Amino acid sequence: MTAESVPPATPITVLGLGDMGSAIARTLLERGHPTTVWNRTASRTVPLVAAGATAADSAAEAVRASPLVVLCVLDYAAVDEVLAAVGDAASGRTLVNVTSGSPEQARAVQRWAREYGAAYLDGGVMGDPPDIGSGEVLLPFSGSRKAFEAHEGVLRKLGAPTYYGADAGLASVEFMAQVALGYELLIGFLHTLRLVREEGVDPAEFAARAAEGVAMYPPLLKAIGEAVRDGEYPPDLGPLSVQSALMGDLVGHRKSQGVDTVRMREVQELMAERVADGHGDQGFSSLIELLGRRG
Amino acid sequence: MTAESVPPATPITVLGLGDMGSAIARTLLERGHPTTVWNRTASRTVPLVAAGATAADSAAEAVRASPLVVLCVLDYAAVDEVLAAVGDAASGRTLVNVTSGSPEQARAVQRWAREYGAAYLDGGVMGDPPDIGSGEVLLPFSGSRKAFEAHEGVLRKLGAPTYYGADAGLASVEFMAQVALGYELLIGFLHTLRLVREEGVDPAEFAARAAEGVAMYPPLLKAIGEAVRDGEYPPDLGPLSVQSALMGDLVGHRKSQGVDTVRMREVQELMAERVADGHGDQGFSSLIELLGRRG
Repeated sequence: MTAESVPPATPITVLGLGDMGSAIARTLLERGHPTTVWNRTASRTVPLVAAGATAADSAAEAVRASPLVVLCVLDYAAVDEVLAAVGDAASGRTLVNVTSGSPEQARAVQRWAREYGAAYLDGGVMGDPPDIGSGEVLLPFSGSRKAFEAHEGVLRKLGAPTYYGADAGLASVEFMAQVALGYELLIGFLHTLRLVREEGVDPAEFAARAAEGVAMYPPLLKAIGEAVRDGEYPPDLGPLSVQSALMGDLVGHRKSQGVDTVRMREVQELMAERVADGHGDQGFSSLIELLGRRG
Repeated sequence: MTAESVPPATPITVLGLGDMGSAIARTLLERGHPTTVWNRTASRTVPLVAAGATAADSAAEAVRASPLVVLCVLDYAAVDEVLAAVGDAASGRTLVNVTSGSPEQARAVQRWAREYGAAYLDGGVMGDPPDIGSGEVLLPFSGSRKAFEAHEGVLRKLGAPTYYGADAGLASVEFMAQVALGYELLIGFLHTLRLVREEGVDPAEFAARAAEGVAMYPPLLKAIGEAVRDGEYPPDLGPLSVQSALMGDLVGHRKSQGVDTVRMREVQELMAERVADGHGDQGFSSLIELLGRRG
């Protein structure tokens, strides 16, 4: 390709230069984007300016410098503060906010952006700052489809972007749900590691076997998702009447070793209730019918 | 191979003919083992006798018929009842007990077997009756290593056997821990499915993505197992100081949708405590230091 045929890289502004914002700005600079940076504490701009970025004196000035603005700050209190300072400068810009927050917070910024005439994409960064620029970082986005399609190429330079829909809250829903599911697995695993350690089993050896076991669950997760969508609950892991017979032993064993029983007692109670209600022939997925009656 | 060179298949007795015991007896018959069966309710022997089994009139008579005895009943109350009836007939036999129960219950039968002069293997069946005979059924065993080595070939006809050590409780520990870990994942997943459904996301589509997400956890589980074994806690998912900043959002989001927050609040509290204690640079694995202070 000759130099003439390469389209000029979109100028981009990065607001917020914590570890993640700095990694984003650095990656964009490396990929040839004219990059303007701003941070509340100005000293964080120094290494990026040394790498070729332009430092702006205010958030509004930074936003005026580029058609595409990435906002990456600590939380939505900081988002609100930055947006208040940006104000009318946002008009005509595309704002890509990757600050972690709730779906409601994302929807509130979407309303703000509409009011101020900016296109809005809300996103999350599922990965660590050093991995920015690799395909290993997942980037869920939602909000303006036009903005996503226009800038997908740029976003792909940071990680693997996926678009979840026009409701700006949906990327956060995905992020929150995936991260929470991970922590559900990890905290349950940690309690179980303690259980086997109390019984004299090497935790690393058990973990290697548990890793093999967990690797067999994805097809079951898909089947449960389909069962929940359809409201029909085939006996996934066997009928509940059989599954439920085990729960007392599981609870008793954990208790005997002083290990947490919160989830096992919950599953035991839910299964017992479904069986008592005449649904003992259904699968684990049917427990969803009983969820949501407690906080 | 000529007929002369095939060793005669070991005669085997199966005590207990529920769905699992019947599947075991049927598989052994199909593999050419002279099979004696007994069940408290004698009518359960009928289809097996039709398939070639010999029905015994009492548990003791059944045990006397074969050097290898598989015990597969509903629970340990039934185990105790059967063993009391078997008594001295157990002498010189190898008893393979696959009844689900606690490690302590397995250890008690191991003591009984020692007293009555029987070799003892305790095991679990991780799989469904129709899958008996396929490699998909996992068979954790512990107890007499000699008995395991002598009969591993027979056990392999039922599933994939693994030996966990001379303490007869260890197979149960493995079974209980693996099953509990599965339920930790599944109940956390079910609550999370409810969360996304409340937010208008298709549960089956989320489940397909969650399945991909969960498939990425095995290496992390191994790393956490090694960290716990070593008592050193590198920042697995990033340092706790960073991970913990997310937890408030996760809890708040679930609360806003009326979804269970038990585990998220627990993780939030544990992380906050580790960070407050000056361990914010460590990883998720370090939370194990705080477990076990509650029931």
